[in-house]
Amino acid sequence: MTDVQFFTRAGPFDLATIAEGTGAAPIEGADTARSFVDVAPLETAGPDDISFLDNKKYLEAFEVSRAGACFVEPGLADRAPASMTPLVCDQPYLALALATRMFYPSSAPEPGVSDTAHIDPSAVIGEGARIEHGVVISAGVQLGKRCHVAAGAVLYENIRLGDDCHVGAGATLMYCLIGDRVWIDTGVRVGTQGFGFAVGPKGAVRIPHTGRVLIGNDVEIGANTTVDRGTAGDTEISDGAMIDNQVQIAHNVKVGRGAILAGQVGLAGSSQVGDYAMIGGKSGVANHIKIGTGAKIGALSGAATDLEAGGTYLGQPAIPIKDFWRQQAAIRRLLKQSKRT
Amino acid sequence: MTDVQFFTRAGPFDLATIAEGTGAAPIEGADTARSFVDVAPLETAGPDDISFLDNKKYLEAFEVSRAGACFVEPGLADRAPASMTPLVCDQPYLALALATRMFYPSSAPEPGVSDTAHIDPSAVIGEGARIEHGVVISAGVQLGKRCHVAAGAVLYENIRLGDDCHVGAGATLMYCLIGDRVWIDTGVRVGTQGFGFAVGPKGAVRIPHTGRVLIGNDVEIGANTTVDRGTAGDTEISDGAMIDNQVQIAHNVKVGRGAILAGQVGLAGSSQVGDYAMIGGKSGVANHIKIGTGAKIGALSGAATDLEAGGTYLGQPAIPIKDFWRQQAAIRRLLKQSKRT
Amino acid sequence: MTDVQFFTRAGPFDLATIAEGTGAAPIEGADTARSFVDVAPLETAGPDDISFLDNKKYLEAFEVSRAGACFVEPGLADRAPASMTPLVCDQPYLALALATRMFYPSSAPEPGVSDTAHIDPSAVIGEGARIEHGVVISAGVQLGKRCHVAAGAVLYENIRLGDDCHVGAGATLMYCLIGDRVWIDTGVRVGTQGFGFAVGPKGAVRIPHTGRVLIGNDVEIGANTTVDRGTAGDTEISDGAMIDNQVQIAHNVKVGRGAILAGQVGLAGSSQVGDYAMIGGKSGVANHIKIGTGAKIGALSGAATDLEAGGTYLGQPAIPIKDFWRQQAAIRRLLKQSKRT
Repeated sequence: MTDVQFFTRAGPFDLATIAEGTGAAPIEGADTARSFVDVAPLETAGPDDISFLDNKKYLEAFEVSRAGACFVEPGLADRAPASMTPLVCDQPYLALALATRMFYPSSAPEPGVSDTAHIDPSAVIGEGARIEHGVVISAGVQLGKRCHVAAGAVLYENIRLGDDCHVGAGATLMYCLIGDRVWIDTGVRVGTQGFGFAVGPKGAVRIPHTGRVLIGNDVEIGANTTVDRGTAGDTEISDGAMIDNQVQIAHNVKVGRGAILAGQVGLAGSSQVGDYAMIGGKSGVANHIKIGTGAKIGALSGAATDLEAGGTYLGQPAIPIKDFWRQQAAIRRLLKQSKRT
Repeated sequence: MTDVQFFTRAGPFDLATIAEGTGAAPIEGADTARSFVDVAPLETAGPDDISFLDNKKYLEAFEVSRAGACFVEPGLADRAPASMTPLVCDQPYLALALATRMFYPSSAPEPGVSDTAHIDPSAVIGEGARIEHGVVISAGVQLGKRCHVAAGAVLYENIRLGDDCHVGAGATLMYCLIGDRVWIDTGVRVGTQGFGFAVGPKGAVRIPHTGRVLIGNDVEIGANTTVDRGTAGDTEISDGAMIDNQVQIAHNVKVGRGAILAGQVGLAGSSQVGDYAMIGGKSGVANHIKIGTGAKIGALSGAATDLEAGGTYLGQPAIPIKDFWRQQAAIRRLLKQSKRT
Repeated sequence: MTDVQFFTRAGPFDLATIAEGTGAAPIEGADTARSFVDVAPLETAGPDDISFLDNKKYLEAFEVSRAGACFVEPGLADRAPASMTPLVCDQPYLALALATRMFYPSSAPEPGVSDTAHIDPSAVIGEGARIEHGVVISAGVQLGKRCHVAAGAVLYENIRLGDDCHVGAGATLMYCLIGDRVWIDTGVRVGTQGFGFAVGPKGAVRIPHTGRVLIGNDVEIGANTTVDRGTAGDTEISDGAMIDNQVQIAHNVKVGRGAILAGQVGLAGSSQVGDYAMIGGKSGVANHIKIGTGAKIGALSGAATDLEAGGTYLGQPAIPIKDFWRQQAAIRRLLKQSKRT
């Protein structure tokens, strides 16, 4: 049961409505008028909840779950307990996402500007904005409609955000232009100076960073992530990129459309991540390296050379994933042989 | 010498009192009435200070240290210089911890609520609280007794903290229930939305995160660590868990009692860390993976499969540590052979 | 073209002035009176811009660039297009840094103290300071001349900073003494308690951290980096150290002069990084390990043993880089052989 102190729920919805909204099919003979109030994990769901099975690891939990209905792949539906209506679909997690959005529809923030916010008179703030306590909005800032700037966030001079953006508490934005529907979480730093210097005869010579950060539409940036601005030229994050917590994006990096960067990824200066590429948690891409369109890199890996579009890579240095596992097997065989002799 | 500008010291204490408080035994014939004023490292300790030797790497420093007394294992006590009284014990670092707590006892924060804090009238704040400048405490928040909320921290609607909690400067808490004596350091983010979406035919479908973060008693969370709330269901951190700086804890993770997570560890979605497990710096645990009770994972490692209780693991992918070192040795032998031929 | 909304440019400068300021030599017959207005990357530079080529990966871009002049190594100058004046030098990136500093000279912050800053009457603030909205400066703090403390930063009791320091928005400083010309970026945490406890029979015993953080002159600390104070004894960062974003520096670490720590590096307790050593992104150094003067560690590596001065290391555990690549080659050969048989 979702905690109603924290979340406001829509519904209830009957099975027919949920099936229509998610594309899942109730098994034959199901009571499509049956009403549901929430989504919940298999372990805690009750008869009025809808659950999901998207990982065989949880098959046992599925078989004993009290959930009234459950999104499940076709091949596993017959493992459902008698009390559960299987909702058959190819992508149970996608169906869950769609159902959750029915029960918890997103809504514009409640408008209002705190009288403790520090807003420069030259800033332009679109209608419907929510500006919380202690926010700083500097000269020349332009905010689109229905933006939500949470407590203590600092927006430096002349930056621009489009409509329906969210800036989390304590985030800091400078030297950046940001599109529509961008979610910037708590503690994010955008536009900081890059780690750039040349080592000369008298030590490190800092290079002024005179580039910007350009962020497209529908981008998400997770908590405490850092995005440096470019040296000469810009750092760019394209439409629909999804970036998790504690990711580090250095100066002049390009992140492609719909690219997915998991937690604690690091992209070194001038690296490029292609459209729809996916990089696993804690992995890194070296300076000036290009990751091709749709390429996938596993966790804790390091791309030290350009990686081809569509490939899947693992390891440090990152190599094609098949080669990685073959090498692991070869090492294990070697070890066995050396024990025998 | 500890900098008295920053720290207030109790004492002095005589050797007998220190021995009693720490369980360490002065060597025979020691002057138990001798008085000590502070703890200090071997290199900088003087005749009135107590030091410690807990790593043989520092044996040389021990032999020339000017410390008046020193916690040391039984087998190394006879290496002490003449001016030093060895305080013999099995765990010198534990003895140091206990002695340091004698000289620097913890105390409740000085109560007081800044008139620049933004506190919603519906919030309930226990007695003895310290609320610093610019703090935001939203509607429905409940704080126990003697909580210390440092400058600029933001507590969102309806969260609860027990007694004697500390919330560091600039930390952000939302969608969470927190026990007693929990230390949350500067810049921590608790309750942020997880990195959750399903990839459908029209691109990524964000899933609303309607779970919470549940934190037990006596938990410590280091600076700039991030803890996402659950998708459906909660993220949970159990009693006594110790979490270092810049750790990333994803949605629906379970961290067991007394588990220890070193700096920059990352726990992916729905992973589980057993009670008293220890994870070394920069290591990761993959989605849905379970780490058994008391298991240990070395640094820079990646748990890609469930790991058994009590085992010790290293590598990416993490394997039993003996196997890891055997593989390393096998590779070195292989290299030697290939040089010979 | 640099965005003039964000950056104020000096100049224009003629080629002779630029050559003198950077040490680069225009090729024979170049028009030294030709005037330039900005620096720019090869792809976007126009006839009035100066660009640079410091990586052969960009040779094609160089050959078709519209840049009016370009810093380039001697051997590649003849690849320049006809419209471009090559500015020949040994270190094109160093020349770029120097030229960029001509066009974008650093200047002292505009002085001024926000009336929303919370400044204790006992704090001493040098002339020319810029203190932004919501800053907290506690009792006994001493700030040198021309310091810039950005919005929402929190400076705790009795800390000291020298002249010309910058403290980024939302940064938190405690228990520290800081030199001149130190740049502390947004969200940095300095002086937090270390991750220190001894595991006794009744569980973890926290050790009070009574040391400080000592930071020299000309140090740079990147966004969201964390620096713990010492246990007994201090954490130290020496003159000229350059530290990138999201680096974790544990208690009692020593970072040598001019050392370079790339993004997401982690230094465990009591580790020591020698003068001018360089550590690549995402690498770690284990507890009590010493990295020699000028040693270099590649990315995603882990120093588990002391590493010699001047060496270059890679891998987890980090080994001499030649050995690392030899081992990789040996594994590949092994794999080929096993396929054959």
